[in-house]
Amino acid sequence: MSESGIISELLVPLCSSLPGAWGLEDDAAHIVTPAGEDLIVTTDTLTDGVHFRAVHGSASAASRALRSNLSDLAAMGARPVCYNMALSIPDSIDEDWLRGFVNQLALDQAHFSIALIGGDTTRTPGPFSVTISAFGSVPEGGALRRNGARPGDNIFVSGTLGDGYLGLKLLNGEIDNGLVSDPEFAIEKFSFPVPRIDLGTALRGKASACADVSDGLLRDLGNICRASKTTARIEREALPFSETAKSIMGANGIDEHKLITGGDDYELIFCVPPSSTLKSTTPVTRIGTIVEGLSDKSPVLVTKNGTELDNDTDVGYEHTW
Amino acid sequence: MSESGIISELLVPLCSSLPGAWGLEDDAAHIVTPAGEDLIVTTDTLTDGVHFRAVHGSASAASRALRSNLSDLAAMGARPVCYNMALSIPDSIDEDWLRGFVNQLALDQAHFSIALIGGDTTRTPGPFSVTISAFGSVPEGGALRRNGARPGDNIFVSGTLGDGYLGLKLLNGEIDNGLVSDPEFAIEKFSFPVPRIDLGTALRGKASACADVSDGLLRDLGNICRASKTTARIEREALPFSETAKSIMGANGIDEHKLITGGDDYELIFCVPPSSTLKSTTPVTRIGTIVEGLSDKSPVLVTKNGTELDNDTDVGYEHTW
Repeated sequence: MSESGIISELLVPLCSSLPGAWGLEDDAAHIVTPAGEDLIVTTDTLTDGVHFRAVHGSASAASRALRSNLSDLAAMGARPVCYNMALSIPDSIDEDWLRGFVNQLALDQAHFSIALIGGDTTRTPGPFSVTISAFGSVPEGGALRRNGARPGDNIFVSGTLGDGYLGLKLLNGEIDNGLVSDPEFAIEKFSFPVPRIDLGTALRGKASACADVSDGLLRDLGNICRASKTTARIEREALPFSETAKSIMGANGIDEHKLITGGDDYELIFCVPPSSTLKSTTPVTRIGTIVEGLSDKSPVLVTKNGTELDNDTDVGYEHTW
Repeated sequence: MSESGIISELLVPLCSSLPGAWGLEDDAAHIVTPAGEDLIVTTDTLTDGVHFRAVHGSASAASRALRSNLSDLAAMGARPVCYNMALSIPDSIDEDWLRGFVNQLALDQAHFSIALIGGDTTRTPGPFSVTISAFGSVPEGGALRRNGARPGDNIFVSGTLGDGYLGLKLLNGEIDNGLVSDPEFAIEKFSFPVPRIDLGTALRGKASACADVSDGLLRDLGNICRASKTTARIEREALPFSETAKSIMGANGIDEHKLITGGDDYELIFCVPPSSTLKSTTPVTRIGTIVEGLSDKSPVLVTKNGTELDNDTDVGYEHTW
């Protein structure tokens, strides 16, 4: 399939509901921001073999590419407006795979009420790669930032932690399906993450800081702490894990530390002043408190039964607890 | 150099003048459109070995990536506002190369009065690749489109044609430097294209259609014709070529057809109603006229001494005249 065929047959239909896309016919497109709102942009690149595997299916590749961006918008309290997509396509990608990719984008577009506004399609001698910029909007000055956490704020996280990480391990055959109570649940969480858009908008004017958990709870909460110049004290026994995660906890090298540093959660981690009341239909769990100052040791201290655990200064997925 | 080092050391300085970039500290950024203006977005991906060669230097890679996008904005009559950049970096790219890339971006930013607003930095097992989305603005409803050309409109092109194509041939060693009167001129035109931003803004409310010449004059003018459902009749003897291009014309397989289909011109091709007067400090040349209907044969007919030349239905760089 030629580049012009990919554009006219596969991509133009994705932009048909958006007048500003001008049918992908022009050198550029016109982004319309809702009146009285700020325009927010975020960008994620996903590369075959690095962030997903093409052999795991084009539907998951499409959803992960789009939804990881929508999760960033959710973390800002933004509602999705449209998105821009640059595709780098190697010869090894056939038309069926590409049609599956575009079909899933069409489904996601309908679900999240957005459309394609433009982009670029090129051939590459490297792996398949997709760069999406998603545009969203928030009421003027209302974007949730990372830098507003204050001592005394309660720390919450949505959903459960580590399921996406487990899903990836299962997909890669690094964990046997039989060892986990519900492998499909974990694989679905990795393959089709659900951006917490409604929660993000519910947090407008309520949360003092917010981020999405894409690189693991410790790392993303650490980013909030560094931006806010505070330290987070989280309670290990409060961390929310699914029944599926609990079913393998302690076996196959899976422990709580792996689950909160593995990444691919696409949950929201956020701070709320004690005076603030939070109403959300999305399940959220209080996991700790913000304390004064940015700790020299680590921005995120983990406690168990009130005792501080030994924690690396730079906690991340490449470190051990 | 780690991803976080690349971001904090190299990329954060590129966004320091732009408050909405939030120091690349958040999940997303805030694009501010000038009051009363429309926001325009365009995206180009450049991949090592496809659109440039890393061995030809990181400065040219940076400028080509950024300026090809600014040229698209120019074609819309837009002034640049900011840009977004996704980098895919293989192990083979060293820190010096990357610093050179970023230094050139800083120079271009200063020259074009823009700054980085966000993006993504990832590792890739494939070639170095950069996807830039550039944002620009035009007075409300004032974007130059491709679909407004009308019969009788004069067709103009800025600058000269084919120099970028020659520059690439020289860089690749496919043409010996000694065969061309000014090889440096052509190499510069390929390596550091100059987006015609001032011309683009001068064309607001004047041009009926406009595009930038990135894939060769015939192809890009053809896009205008298809969008406008008209045909272009261009005069071969009117086509503007540089002294450098003339110095090799007819030798080494270089003819006029190659020069108007080779691409990498980053000039503007545009149509102006006969009633309209055009004032521009950028050199432009009238090369033909728009005629009624979209020709079955080709959207662009080329004439010599008033006689129509034989022309493929789909003229492009992979076709011969």
